[in-house]
Amino acid sequence: MIEALKSYQKRNNEQLDAWLDLYPFQQQRLTEAMRYALLLGGKRARPFLVYATGHIFDCTLEQLDTPAAAIECIHAYSLIHDDLPAMDDDELRRGKATCHIEFDEATAILTGDALQTLAFTILSEGKLAPFAECQRIKMVQKLAHASGAAGMCIGQALDLEAENRNVGLQELEQIHRHKTGALIRCAVQLGALAAGDKGVAQLPHLEKYADAIGLAFQVQDDILDIISDTETLGKPQGSDVELNKSTYPALLGLEGAQQKAKQLFEEALCALDAIPYNTQLLEDFARYVIERNN
Amino acid sequence: MIEALKSYQKRNNEQLDAWLDLYPFQQQRLTEAMRYALLLGGKRARPFLVYATGHIFDCTLEQLDTPAAAIECIHAYSLIHDDLPAMDDDELRRGKATCHIEFDEATAILTGDALQTLAFTILSEGKLAPFAECQRIKMVQKLAHASGAAGMCIGQALDLEAENRNVGLQELEQIHRHKTGALIRCAVQLGALAAGDKGVAQLPHLEKYADAIGLAFQVQDDILDIISDTETLGKPQGSDVELNKSTYPALLGLEGAQQKAKQLFEEALCALDAIPYNTQLLEDFARYVIERNN
Repeated sequence: MIEALKSYQKRNNEQLDAWLDLYPFQQQRLTEAMRYALLLGGKRARPFLVYATGHIFDCTLEQLDTPAAAIECIHAYSLIHDDLPAMDDDELRRGKATCHIEFDEATAILTGDALQTLAFTILSEGKLAPFAECQRIKMVQKLAHASGAAGMCIGQALDLEAENRNVGLQELEQIHRHKTGALIRCAVQLGALAAGDKGVAQLPHLEKYADAIGLAFQVQDDILDIISDTETLGKPQGSDVELNKSTYPALLGLEGAQQKAKQLFEEALCALDAIPYNTQLLEDFARYVIERNN
Repeated sequence: MIEALKSYQKRNNEQLDAWLDLYPFQQQRLTEAMRYALLLGGKRARPFLVYATGHIFDCTLEQLDTPAAAIECIHAYSLIHDDLPAMDDDELRRGKATCHIEFDEATAILTGDALQTLAFTILSEGKLAPFAECQRIKMVQKLAHASGAAGMCIGQALDLEAENRNVGLQELEQIHRHKTGALIRCAVQLGALAAGDKGVAQLPHLEKYADAIGLAFQVQDDILDIISDTETLGKPQGSDVELNKSTYPALLGLEGAQQKAKQLFEEALCALDAIPYNTQLLEDFARYVIERNN
């Protein structure tokens, strides 16, 4: 699994780098900041999910490169904006200076903006199967739905609003289902769309899987914020507690949160069981989500 | 012309309002801020250009609503982000408090983000002619190209970099061709695309027209910053001088700038002359651009 993750990661980086090469003004601060933020590192979980989902249906890698690159641009833009002083005010991301620290705040805002746009350039111009116009439009629809005011953006807004007050389990879940869950769900949707009818037929199961691991990802993040250390995390350990954020361990206790992660893992596997193809990679990824230490 | 402008403006506002109604979390701060910023007022020059261009080729209004609404979302998002403290730090826009003043900075960043996404939701989901998948994808391509790191975003970056230093005429033109020109050019492209082959055949002339009025728009803006007053402008008069921004009057003198605007107007009319259809509305708009007082 780790090898597959690394190989897709490398492929995704090369794709993104090539997309950036197409822009005029390569020496300009904005273009440099886009490259910095996009290729800063990171697990590439969303591109992985696109590739691993398409893999189930025997899609070629070339068919999956386009949605994988597009979704990573959305994720990268959201991190840049979330890290801004007016938002979470983070100086460290993936072990390196955040975009507004390395460059400046104005550049970081613009960089996020331009990376969001790049996602839609990629989806509308990147290689896909021939005669795939309908597929392409559906991908734009799904990605826009998952990242805008019905998905990721409203999730971040709900999260900001919840700071410094007590949040119950249901509300916390609502925040995460939008803030991070929507884009993870979108990753499997894009992978399935790339496979055509065969993939679309399995969407209900794939979405159930994605919803479970999306939430598990967040629960594990909350757990790691307590039990890991800054070096392993690549960001300051204990920052949730410091920011007085509601977390699963705070609501359920450390053991309760670990049980919750396990239970979501079981849900994910159960969803995969309903798919009549080889879903080994997705199963391995679900295990990785709850066992990872950074 | 003013009646046409007002009628398209009203139609565009209704469309945008209806798109916003579709979002969940209507009571949430983000959704409220999106509505505030999107319906704050403004001339709706870009939607007008979509409608007026499509009108040349006898497109129905319904065929043009979708690109007109999408492009206004991009424009509105760019204004919100440009006004942020880290960028131009403006408190007044269209005579009202800017988004980060009326709400807060974090909300303003998210609102811009979500409005950019909405543009692509509208283009991918909004009504268009039947079987228009190819048209739709081309619209997404054009809008993303015009607004990202090859267009509007790089223009804003070039503009920020040029602050507080002397900029020559050529560089100033390069800034404006990207910062505002790219989206104005895109407006006529979308209008022409909506008309199909008939419209696409006239694209070279339409683009020449758009490039001329796009620049004329900026020259007139610079002139108004000197000769108008804050109330008429809806934003602080003299702010260019205060920010030490390079402007056409600063480089050419007031009279020279007025001549430049006139010359660009003539270029625009010359481009329209090559189009074998009735282009009266676009001609009137060009006149309006250099004669307006706000």
